Amino acid sequence: MSTTKSQELYRRAQQVIPKGVSGHYGYAVDAESPVFFESSGGSRFIDIDGNSYVDWMCAYGPMILGYNHPIVDEAAQRQMAAGNTVSLAGPVMVELAEHLVQMVSGVDWALFGKNGADSTGLAVMVARAATGRKYIVKVDGGYHGSAPWMQATGSPGTVAEDQALVCSVPWNDAAALQRAIDAHPDDVACFISSPYHHPVFADNVLPADGYWAAVEAMCRRAGVVLIVDDVRAGFRINLAGSHVAYGFQPDLVCFGKALGNGYPIAALTGTDALRDAATETFYTGTQFFNAAPMAAALATLQQLAEVDAAQRITETGERLSRGLVEAAAAHGYELRASGVPGMPYYRVLSDAGPAFHARWIAECVKRGAYLLSYHNAFVSTAHSDADLERTWEISDRAFQALSDSA
Amino acid sequence: MSTTKSQELYRRAQQVIPKGVSGHYGYAVDAESPVFFESSGGSRFIDIDGNSYVDWMCAYGPMILGYNHPIVDEAAQRQMAAGNTVSLAGPVMVELAEHLVQMVSGVDWALFGKNGADSTGLAVMVARAATGRKYIVKVDGGYHGSAPWMQATGSPGTVAEDQALVCSVPWNDAAALQRAIDAHPDDVACFISSPYHHPVFADNVLPADGYWAAVEAMCRRAGVVLIVDDVRAGFRINLAGSHVAYGFQPDLVCFGKALGNGYPIAALTGTDALRDAATETFYTGTQFFNAAPMAAALATLQQLAEVDAAQRITETGERLSRGLVEAAAAHGYELRASGVPGMPYYRVLSDAGPAFHARWIAECVKRGAYLLSYHNAFVSTAHSDADLERTWEISDRAFQALSDSA
Repeated sequence: MSTTKSQELYRRAQQVIPKGVSGHYGYAVDAESPVFFESSGGSRFIDIDGNSYVDWMCAYGPMILGYNHPIVDEAAQRQMAAGNTVSLAGPVMVELAEHLVQMVSGVDWALFGKNGADSTGLAVMVARAATGRKYIVKVDGGYHGSAPWMQATGSPGTVAEDQALVCSVPWNDAAALQRAIDAHPDDVACFISSPYHHPVFADNVLPADGYWAAVEAMCRRAGVVLIVDDVRAGFRINLAGSHVAYGFQPDLVCFGKALGNGYPIAALTGTDALRDAATETFYTGTQFFNAAPMAAALATLQQLAEVDAAQRITETGERLSRGLVEAAAAHGYELRASGVPGMPYYRVLSDAGPAFHARWIAECVKRGAYLLSYHNAFVSTAHSDADLERTWEISDRAFQALSDSA
Repeated sequence: MSTTKSQELYRRAQQVIPKGVSGHYGYAVDAESPVFFESSGGSRFIDIDGNSYVDWMCAYGPMILGYNHPIVDEAAQRQMAAGNTVSLAGPVMVELAEHLVQMVSGVDWALFGKNGADSTGLAVMVARAATGRKYIVKVDGGYHGSAPWMQATGSPGTVAEDQALVCSVPWNDAAALQRAIDAHPDDVACFISSPYHHPVFADNVLPADGYWAAVEAMCRRAGVVLIVDDVRAGFRINLAGSHVAYGFQPDLVCFGKALGNGYPIAALTGTDALRDAATETFYTGTQFFNAAPMAAALATLQQLAEVDAAQRITETGERLSRGLVEAAAAHGYELRASGVPGMPYYRVLSDAGPAFHARWIAECVKRGAYLLSYHNAFVSTAHSDADLERTWEISDRAFQALSDSA
C-alpha cells in the first residue's frame, strides 16, 4: 500500500495550513499514514492513493448509519432545495426538537449548535445562569471540546484564568466529587462528565456499580447541575441517551457527532427546571440555524430507531472485539478491549508499552482496516459481516507481521 | 399579509425550544412577524404562510450570491456525493486554503471552523500563544460571537472572570487604545476589531481618516497582535479583505458568514509570523473537517471574483439607500444610512426615537421587504433592479402608512 499522493498533498497543505492538518485529525498523521480521502460509502472510505479501508473511526463518531446514507442524504437535499441558511428558521428545527425531546429520556427542550463544544459550552453557561455559581467540576482526562476552559492548564493559547474555575476529579470517584463540592461551598455550578470514561491514550472505564446513583444524589443534594456529555457516546449505547443505560437522570445532556450522520449539528437538551436559564443565556452562531443538517438529523434519528441502531452496533462491536482478541491470542498476544462494545478502545498488552500497540495498528491500517492507536474506535450500523471478516483477517496478518519482525 | 402559521408554529416551538427561537434569530420575533421560512431562492424567501419577501438580511450575512445558488450547490453536492465528514480530511481543504491565501491580501495560512466565533476565539488564542500575554482589547459594542469572554460583563451564564482580561475602548479612538495598551505593560496580547464599526441598535461608523494607520503602527510598536474580525463585512467591501479598503495590514483576519454562501464554514487567516503559534494552539471540532462546505466555499470565492461581487454589492447598496432616502424625503422624513453601502444600517430620524423607525421597518416587512430595525442589512449579488424597485415601492407605501396613522 502506497500513500504517496497523501504525503505529497500533505506537504502542499503545510504551506497554507499550520501543521498541514490541524486539530484532532492532525494527530493521526505520520509519514506512512493516509492523510486525505477521495470518496466514502457505507462502512468504507478510499484515500487519494486509491487504497480502500474498512473504517472503524467513523469520522471520529459522526458516521453512525454509514457514509452517504441515502435516506439521510435525501432528507438533507430536499431541505437544501427548499432552503438551508435563510433569514428565518426552518420548521424542521421545531420537528427535530420535538423528536429529540420525545426520544431522549427525561428532557423537555433542545437547543442546536454545530459542534459538541457548542453544546458543552452552552451547558456550562446554563448551569451558571441557573445556579448563580461559578465552579465547574469535570473528570480528569475527560474531553469536552477545545475551548480554552476545556483544555489543560498551560495549553498554548490559554491563560491560567481560563481554567481557574475548573476543578477536576478522578473518574469513578464519587468521594472526590463530594470533596470538590465541599471545597467550594454553594459555589459549584455543575458536574460535567461523559457517561463512561473514554479518554485518549488510556484504557476506557465503565461506571462502577452505584457510581452514577451516588453522583446523582450528591448533585441533587448540593444543587449542582448534572451535565452528561453524550457527544461521543450518544446513540451508540442507548437511543434514549446513555444515561438510560446507567440508570440515572442528568439535568442537561449534550449531543453532537452521530446526531446528523456527518451533517454538522449538535444539540443541548435539558429539563424544564433549566428552561428559564436556557432562555436567558445568549448563545448563538451564524450557522446554528442551517436547516439541512436539521433535516439530516431528523432522518438520522428516525433511521436509528428503525434499525434498532444501538443494539445492532453493540452486537457488531462485541463480535469485532471478540474476533480481534482471538486473533491476538492465536499469535500469543493479549489484546484488551475496554469501554462499551460500540466504541471499543483497544490495547495490545506488551512490555514494550504503547509503541508495540501502535505498530499493530499501523500494520492494520496499511492492510485496509482504519483504526487509531490512541483513540477509541466507533462502530456503525453499516459495518457488515464482510467488514468484520476482512478486519479479523487483516488483524491476523498484522499480528503475524509483528511476530515476523520480532 | 398574515403570519398565522408562523405564529402557531412559534407557539409549538416554545414547548420544546427555550424562547421558541433562540439566539440572534430570536430577537427578530414579535407577535406579527414571520418566524419560519418555507423556501428560498435568489434574493427572496417565502415564509410558511406563503408570503414572499425581498430579503435584505441575507441570513444575517451568509447569503452573498443568492439563495440556492446553482454553482455553489453543485460544488457542494459533488463533494457530498464523494464524501463529506470522513475520518480523513478532503483534498478540497488544501485547495480552499490555497485559494484564500492567494485571494486575501497579506496572509499566508488558513484554518477552518464552522462559525465566526470559532475564528475569533482561535484568533485570540493564537495571539496569546504568540505573545505569552493575557489581555484582549476590543471595541465598545463590537460583536465577535457569543462565547463568554465575548459577552458583556454580567450577561446570564457568564462569570466576572470570563471578561476580566478583556478591555474595551471606544471605536475610532486610537488614543484610548494606546492607554489600554499602556495600562497593561507588555501584557496586551491583541486588539480585535471589525474593519468598521457595525454595532446593533446604533448607527454604524466608518474608520476616521488615519485611524487604522495609527492603530497598525501602535500595535506593531507594542507587539500587540492586530486581529480584524471580517466575519460580517468580509467580501462585501473588498474581495481581498476589508483591510485592503482601509489601507492597513492585520496579523490575523477572521472570516465566516458569506464565505460559504450559506454552507457552514468559517476561517482564520494569518501571517507567517504567527504560523508557529497557530500550529501549537489546539483548536478543533467534530465538524471542522466537513468537506462539502469547503467545496461550497471554494466555489463561492471563485464566483465572487467572477462577478466582481464587492463592487456590484456596493453599487446595489448605494442605489438601495439612495432610493430609500428619497422615499423618506418624499414623505417629509429623514432616513439615515450608515456603514458601508453593502451592509447599510438604516434609521428614520424621529423625536419619537427608535420606536418610530421600528414601525417603518414593520410596515416594510409586512409588505414584503425583509429588514430588521436594529441590525445592518446585507446586500447580495442576487439583488436585482426588480428587487430594488419593489423595495422602493414598499418603502414608499410604508412611509405613507406612517403618515396616515400619525
